[in-house]
Amino acid sequence: MIKPTPLSGFPEWLPAQQLAEQKFIDTIRSVYELYGFSRLETSAVERVGILEAKGEINKEIYGIGRLQGPPGRWEMALHFDLTVPLARYVALNSGALSFPFKRWQIQKVWRGERPQEGRFREFYQADIDVIGDGELPLSFDAEMPAVIHEVFKRLGIKAQININNRKVLLGYYQSLGLTEELSVSILREVDKLDKIGVDKVKEALLKLDLSEAAAESCLTLCRLKGAPQAVIEQAEALHIDNELFGQGLAELKFIAEELSHIGEESLIFNLGIVRGLDYYTGTIYETSLPDYPGLGSICSGGRYENLASQFINRRLPGVGISIGLSRLISHLFSVNAIDCRTQTPTKVLITWPEEALRPACRAIAARLRNSGIPAEIYHETAPLKKQLRYADRKGIDYILFPHLYSESEEQIEIKNMQTANQEQISLSSWIEQYKKSQS
Amino acid sequence: MIKPTPLSGFPEWLPAQQLAEQKFIDTIRSVYELYGFSRLETSAVERVGILEAKGEINKEIYGIGRLQGPPGRWEMALHFDLTVPLARYVALNSGALSFPFKRWQIQKVWRGERPQEGRFREFYQADIDVIGDGELPLSFDAEMPAVIHEVFKRLGIKAQININNRKVLLGYYQSLGLTEELSVSILREVDKLDKIGVDKVKEALLKLDLSEAAAESCLTLCRLKGAPQAVIEQAEALHIDNELFGQGLAELKFIAEELSHIGEESLIFNLGIVRGLDYYTGTIYETSLPDYPGLGSICSGGRYENLASQFINRRLPGVGISIGLSRLISHLFSVNAIDCRTQTPTKVLITWPEEALRPACRAIAARLRNSGIPAEIYHETAPLKKQLRYADRKGIDYILFPHLYSESEEQIEIKNMQTANQEQISLSSWIEQYKKSQS
Repeated sequence: MIKPTPLSGFPEWLPAQQLAEQKFIDTIRSVYELYGFSRLETSAVERVGILEAKGEINKEIYGIGRLQGPPGRWEMALHFDLTVPLARYVALNSGALSFPFKRWQIQKVWRGERPQEGRFREFYQADIDVIGDGELPLSFDAEMPAVIHEVFKRLGIKAQININNRKVLLGYYQSLGLTEELSVSILREVDKLDKIGVDKVKEALLKLDLSEAAAESCLTLCRLKGAPQAVIEQAEALHIDNELFGQGLAELKFIAEELSHIGEESLIFNLGIVRGLDYYTGTIYETSLPDYPGLGSICSGGRYENLASQFINRRLPGVGISIGLSRLISHLFSVNAIDCRTQTPTKVLITWPEEALRPACRAIAARLRNSGIPAEIYHETAPLKKQLRYADRKGIDYILFPHLYSESEEQIEIKNMQTANQEQISLSSWIEQYKKSQS
Repeated sequence: MIKPTPLSGFPEWLPAQQLAEQKFIDTIRSVYELYGFSRLETSAVERVGILEAKGEINKEIYGIGRLQGPPGRWEMALHFDLTVPLARYVALNSGALSFPFKRWQIQKVWRGERPQEGRFREFYQADIDVIGDGELPLSFDAEMPAVIHEVFKRLGIKAQININNRKVLLGYYQSLGLTEELSVSILREVDKLDKIGVDKVKEALLKLDLSEAAAESCLTLCRLKGAPQAVIEQAEALHIDNELFGQGLAELKFIAEELSHIGEESLIFNLGIVRGLDYYTGTIYETSLPDYPGLGSICSGGRYENLASQFINRRLPGVGISIGLSRLISHLFSVNAIDCRTQTPTKVLITWPEEALRPACRAIAARLRNSGIPAEIYHETAPLKKQLRYADRKGIDYILFPHLYSESEEQIEIKNMQTANQEQISLSSWIEQYKKSQS
């Protein structure tokens, strides 16, 4: 006998949590689709050469090979994010796609990291990206936060989306007469603002040989944070004469106008967010959850100039954002923030009190299912107490007693397990009533 | 530059096919849930020792390991089916589960097979199983075909579910005085009936040292096939005095009664199906699609005595069935049996004719999305022709013109791209009309 033990870093949920995770996935997907994003699922496996095209993180990549004999050389591996597969897919199928190509992709990814709190080796990401052919209108930069705002609203989680634009920062550094190389180094330090605080960042900036004045100036800019309109006005008040800065600010203005329906508690402009990756070139996003500050940014992304330059000689600019779904939901589980009462989709348990009532049970079950209501007939003619215990353990909302039912008289008795209210009613009336209560 | 090329055996679909596959998954899942099956997703990765617990097919298993340095020994691997992970999950969490445990599981699995027509290395399976604690009522054996029948009905695909019971076959061989060992050998030969025909099977049976009469007798039994009631009567007419045979027949009778609402074109009893695995002990299922005979059984399963004997010292009998989703859908794609006109969830494209109409576009989009109708605003103020071409290429059903819209007068003009019908109507009336047409 082999004792099964959990694999560290590969989370797996109990039934009630499974339902909760599915609900999150369904909600995210439905909002993505309401905005016209189309499903993409790429294979979990990529050629190693594709995954390594960007270099860097190959130490986290899981290679795969047939068990028989050790692999001479790794040829295939599991994807570690959904962006490289997107780039490869778009390059491979560019002739068959319609641009702008809007796709959602909710899939697991794998990373051979050391497992720790909130870090998994197998986890879900929930991405959207829009890819343009040659160019991509700014309206999509405004769409990303609109989608994410709607997602978290429907999930019932307070979320604050932070928006910045790299052009504002880089243009500002240009206006100070700093080189591009130095600007990138500054960004790297500014990125640590939330973690190490203003003083330490200033220290680091001075070490980069910035003058006291320049360092202070950089810090002033990156501490601008608040309602979009206010931040824009403060940035304008700096009177910076730099084209890139102006362009970035104009982009932020457009986004502020497009998102004017979203309140400050959900959307702020924050000139201090940077995103580590050099990849991003314009708008950038981070999302924090005020009720779960320890989580950090749970949803980030931005605008990039060229999705697939490693794979195709065609300029494909894009903008995208990604929800760290497994990280989010595992945290919510760990603080008991999600109702995990029910462990089945079944809404109605039809009791089976005696053999002879089986046809009635079957007819009722068919009616309920045809109305879209998940239903089970209890699987044997056990004592009622046992049947009720089953419903209770699984968290089924309604218990139905079929003894009054006949084809001509479709009367049932049904008990709401939460209110303990029990009534006799015709099956059609009950179905109608139930569906109204759900909509 | 790295040229992306497809990985053989790892299918990936174009956008319109992606939507079709998703629709299949959604349909299958919704029926599974209507019958009270609860979602299970296990990690894709298992310990090698778990996957090898049953022996046999380890040559197909893909091991995984970090790219850095070749693995000394394979410790983890990708699951090759959803049954072993189910067994491991149930054994691991048996204390936390409520039995009978009904789960659906729609996930990809991986097998290092030589790729060929209809054989993939990464593919979807869509399983349901019910696991009992100590015992499992027969009602679940009848539930499997009911669920599968409903699935294929909703998918719009003719399917014929074949049902047999191993006890009938084994009891019959017992009654002929054949040993258990010989019976298993006979089953193996009978299993080839469809592939090699009666004569060849008879030859093989004679080679097993069966008498001419016994071989003929075995063949007579396994050629019983047809409407459930007729097959039962024919089997009864054999007057076999054997307990196991009688038990199997009684089980078949119960199932016939439970499924009496399903016609013969969709459900037959077929005493010639065996299923290769020794695993099954009672009811067995195979499903063929009359319109796609080359596909073979696309959905098979059966009753087993003990799910997880390798992992836990507790009797956990079960019954399950599995749809070969990727095999099915790739075949349907290959014969153009699926409408792949549309490549977006978007139902309405809101044209953006001029800058000033942006607020109207936004208001209309919000209204549509709040009503659950996926909508896009065209992403720039391009010539109308270009906007229409975009809608056409993506297969969007409706084009909306926002020029009449104001907050007080919510008039719109909208064109149905399939009928070419264009009308002026209030947005709320149109939404109501659209939703009616969809339900």
